[in-house]
Amino acid sequence: MTPDERLAVREVYDAYIGALDDGDYEAWPGFFLDPCRYRVTAAENWDRGLPLSLIACESVAMLEDRVTSLRRTQMFAPRRVRHFLSAMRIRRDGDAILVRANFLMLHSIEGEPTAILATGRLIDRLIETADGLRFQEKIAVYDSPLIPNSLIVPV
Amino acid sequence: MTPDERLAVREVYDAYIGALDDGDYEAWPGFFLDPCRYRVTAAENWDRGLPLSLIACESVAMLEDRVTSLRRTQMFAPRRVRHFLSAMRIRRDGDAILVRANFLMLHSIEGEPTAILATGRLIDRLIETADGLRFQEKIAVYDSPLIPNSLIVPV
Amino acid sequence: MTPDERLAVREVYDAYIGALDDGDYEAWPGFFLDPCRYRVTAAENWDRGLPLSLIACESVAMLEDRVTSLRRTQMFAPRRVRHFLSAMRIRRDGDAILVRANFLMLHSIEGEPTAILATGRLIDRLIETADGLRFQEKIAVYDSPLIPNSLIVPV
Repeated sequence: MTPDERLAVREVYDAYIGALDDGDYEAWPGFFLDPCRYRVTAAENWDRGLPLSLIACESVAMLEDRVTSLRRTQMFAPRRVRHFLSAMRIRRDGDAILVRANFLMLHSIEGEPTAILATGRLIDRLIETADGLRFQEKIAVYDSPLIPNSLIVPV
Repeated sequence: MTPDERLAVREVYDAYIGALDDGDYEAWPGFFLDPCRYRVTAAENWDRGLPLSLIACESVAMLEDRVTSLRRTQMFAPRRVRHFLSAMRIRRDGDAILVRANFLMLHSIEGEPTAILATGRLIDRLIETADGLRFQEKIAVYDSPLIPNSLIVPV
Repeated sequence: MTPDERLAVREVYDAYIGALDDGDYEAWPGFFLDPCRYRVTAAENWDRGLPLSLIACESVAMLEDRVTSLRRTQMFAPRRVRHFLSAMRIRRDGDAILVRANFLMLHSIEGEPTAILATGRLIDRLIETADGLRFQEKIAVYDSPLIPNSLIVPV
């Protein structure tokens, strides 16, 4: 991959977390292929090869369902979330692009100071489409099972 | 914009937060045009369209005044601050460059462990000058109104 | 330096912290030249020019020794660490590349929520070799002397 191609991958991530942190959840499913695989799981499960997940979606429709339920929850507990990424490693694998990265999420719940929500790693697979890069697979493995309020917002 | 142009914008931010976190506050006003607009405001105000700001500067001279008062405060409460950015979205708008990004600030006050100072978003406008890119507008919207020691250091 | 060259430097850092956060400590010494200088020191020492360091290694063999002792410690206190970088400033100095950056490390110890481990700055010197860029010098200056469990994992 050329430097410009790798920069383009980084920009997809910036657009992705930017949309989420703007609260534009409706844009979220549009970053995925259909079918897709979105999974949020604890490191202690992932490292032991356990299939257990906190969240598992296999289609854009399932992602849209999550947005609906998220909207309902957000009404009761308004919060602001910020994603930060690091250690992005990008490589081509046939017609896919494999990405590994770290994530950090912080949240600010009304009436409380800003706090760490979770850290972890992303194990992602993107495909180039006519409309740009889309996630075929996004696996978010969070480090600590003790996450406040669980990861109801997308990672 | 070309990938190289967008990378150049990212490098302005790296230089900007690098100067701040090195404690080189005297370099700070030099990143702005004159006149300019520097504003630090809470999300709960910004989202309701309220004009209330924690800090509002409209010229390089006002920024320099802040540096002077900051130097006076720092003498009494030495602290080290680190900025982190993410979700940078860069686009051209006429002769300006519009940038949106997330920020995270952490601080280490003498005798205390490192702690979160604030998270939030930046809504910035840069102009290309003969001396390089300069901020015409920088609006920092912090997420939680409960920020320790308020945001006296530049965002 | 060209934008592509600077992007290549950023990618070395992504590979470096990626390897560390994957727990692949055995890969760590391979990022350094031999001899090298790896030093972890507190800001209050560094800023006063004191030679005191928490950790100081001057060869790849010494780095390898640290990995061995780290493996022994990790057996007793399993933890997951995530590095985040910002404010990367890269410039050529003769045949070396000088890099300054911020770091943030968070850790998740079994049975505890994710917490801040340390913030600080990196003052690094890389050399281009036939096998790629290698650290000739890496000085990590952490901000707060109150770091939980001290910085036993590489910075």
